[in-house]
Amino acid sequence: MQMAKIGATAKGGCNRQALTDLDKQARDLWVQWAEEAGCDLRIDQMGNIFARRPGLNNALPAVVTGSHIDTQPTGGKFDGVYGVLAGLEVIRSLNDHDISTSAPIEAVIWTNEEGARFSPAMVGSGVWCGEFPLEYGHNRSDKTGKTIKQELERIDYLGDTACTPYPIKGFIELHIEQGPILENEELQIGILTGVQGMNWYDLTITGQPVHAGPTPMEGRRDPFMALHGIIKNLYAMTAEFAPWSRVTFGDISAQPGARNTVPEHLIVAVDLRHPDKSVLAEMDRRFREIVAESCALANLDHDIAIEWQSPAVAFDTSCIDAVRKATVDLGYSNKEMVSGAGHDAVYVSRVAPTSMIFIPCEKGISHNEAENAKKEDIEAGSNVLINALVNLAND
Amino acid sequence: MQMAKIGATAKGGCNRQALTDLDKQARDLWVQWAEEAGCDLRIDQMGNIFARRPGLNNALPAVVTGSHIDTQPTGGKFDGVYGVLAGLEVIRSLNDHDISTSAPIEAVIWTNEEGARFSPAMVGSGVWCGEFPLEYGHNRSDKTGKTIKQELERIDYLGDTACTPYPIKGFIELHIEQGPILENEELQIGILTGVQGMNWYDLTITGQPVHAGPTPMEGRRDPFMALHGIIKNLYAMTAEFAPWSRVTFGDISAQPGARNTVPEHLIVAVDLRHPDKSVLAEMDRRFREIVAESCALANLDHDIAIEWQSPAVAFDTSCIDAVRKATVDLGYSNKEMVSGAGHDAVYVSRVAPTSMIFIPCEKGISHNEAENAKKEDIEAGSNVLINALVNLAND
Repeated sequence: MQMAKIGATAKGGCNRQALTDLDKQARDLWVQWAEEAGCDLRIDQMGNIFARRPGLNNALPAVVTGSHIDTQPTGGKFDGVYGVLAGLEVIRSLNDHDISTSAPIEAVIWTNEEGARFSPAMVGSGVWCGEFPLEYGHNRSDKTGKTIKQELERIDYLGDTACTPYPIKGFIELHIEQGPILENEELQIGILTGVQGMNWYDLTITGQPVHAGPTPMEGRRDPFMALHGIIKNLYAMTAEFAPWSRVTFGDISAQPGARNTVPEHLIVAVDLRHPDKSVLAEMDRRFREIVAESCALANLDHDIAIEWQSPAVAFDTSCIDAVRKATVDLGYSNKEMVSGAGHDAVYVSRVAPTSMIFIPCEKGISHNEAENAKKEDIEAGSNVLINALVNLAND
Repeated sequence: MQMAKIGATAKGGCNRQALTDLDKQARDLWVQWAEEAGCDLRIDQMGNIFARRPGLNNALPAVVTGSHIDTQPTGGKFDGVYGVLAGLEVIRSLNDHDISTSAPIEAVIWTNEEGARFSPAMVGSGVWCGEFPLEYGHNRSDKTGKTIKQELERIDYLGDTACTPYPIKGFIELHIEQGPILENEELQIGILTGVQGMNWYDLTITGQPVHAGPTPMEGRRDPFMALHGIIKNLYAMTAEFAPWSRVTFGDISAQPGARNTVPEHLIVAVDLRHPDKSVLAEMDRRFREIVAESCALANLDHDIAIEWQSPAVAFDTSCIDAVRKATVDLGYSNKEMVSGAGHDAVYVSRVAPTSMIFIPCEKGISHNEAENAKKEDIEAGSNVLINALVNLAND
């Protein structure tokens, strides 16, 4: 747990935000370990770090694993860093057992996955895969105005390797689940087949602001008179597409928001998710239908603005197969699942065959200093990772 | 419309907030008119102004009418000032027709009814009736820290008459309805039998904040899962006590209010009203029952905090009778109704027999520069007022 001491919090978590002095300490330690394990190091223009263990045939595309070491301000000891350390552990184990692979194996640290210090999240892998231009990545600034490029220079991690894709046979990211499914079902390994598509909406329901006292109930154009039906029907609609469908109302506000006035506007943040593109499209259609019907019934106007969309990701069959085979060979209880949250693997999957491995975390709690995982699950995940990587590298 | 020019806004409304230079101009004009009409003037320690037309027997308790001349920042030309000018008009008409009354008749301006500059509302009549101590009234301050006492001194309206009740035979306040009922039913006069009781609550529903993606729907403790049923059932419960029952959700917020996190808390401002004390008590009981059941079903905690309560007011029978008789004698279409909003008459009714007269206002719009009333309704209201006051004064 030497790494977890860097940025350790009193409550047992970690505060090691991207490109701080603490992030530099953690990077330096990991680089030192990787060099001690005989790896070749590359640092790219976004500060992503690649540690390469040569294969028997270094002309073959590499097999890659990795995650991130930055944390939330009140983050845990496992989110991200587990996958980063496991990558190094794979390389050490192969060294210890003197195992060679056909293709080279690489472990990677992606810069600023959390998005806690610099927005957006996953910007290191995002620039790398081509989602964002390099200049955009360099110019992201924190609250004090410091940019990623300035901070990379300051901590000496502005590399000269081009931040662009290179030939990759497969990328496998190992991560804690950050949800309760594996723990609830008492399973050790999640074999990831994809990532949920997400639609973020701002729903505005508009009525007429009138005085709470003198105005009879029947004449009102009150946004709450549509809201309750919309919420109820969205839960019911989402249940039709269980178990992977999600609807979340994360925020709500009223305007003018005066205690004795019917609101003119209600603004609701709606988050719809499903791993199947066509199902998410159908959920989007039904959402709009439900809102339109409820608002029409209550004589209200409405507007639905798309705030953000992240398309569903279907991971690569060969990588999923490698994870499944390793899990079954090792005899771990498991289930195929999708990720509900974003990971660097989402961006990597745009340009390279990709899958992920999940292990349970206590009560599904993450982004929290109480984040925890069992030692035997941590070992199980690492064992699946090494087997999957070696299988891919020798395939 | 000389009075409406003081503080007139470009959109046809009035911005004449309490104890400003504009309020002073309006007070001075009204006082001048009252003196020209032969009234004796008294100004009390809260700046309330009483203009007295002596009766044949000045030992008899006075018959009083009045309202306020302060406005909202974007107020209208009728709210309050209509009743204040009508009071003076009653006295002038009695003079013009050389009509004497047994009891003296008084017109009054109450200080700071709106509560727009100094909180709370109705503080002039509130101190007068004993709801607030004089020192409390004097120390109310505006946003810049100026107190009511300082501003009364500055505009020369800090009187030396004690701000306490004196013998009153009846108090009748004439006001625009500030709601749509009379206009919708095409009636000219509202005969007020009372004022709605109001309960203001802060309802907090508490669940567990979890990530919108990885957390399955079925395990969630999501405050929105109780909210929709609570809203629906409160509308249905309120409908059982129609037509005078009201429920209004004026404000709502979520904590932490993050788009991709189930809220830990939803805080909803709930406003329940009914003119019958026992019915409002029953609505309160049912409200608590509905919340408890919905939250228990969804495995959520809740808290109901009473933010403010204003008991229902039943006006005095003799004053209601005087208004009804005047209305019927004059042949105006009418209905008995209750006020949904607070008025100075509410505080006056604590210490003196009281009723009110309403006239329609356009679309029920008030606290708005678009506030409007028809000339014939304004005349009708004034005619009812003079007849009711004379009847009471000669009774």
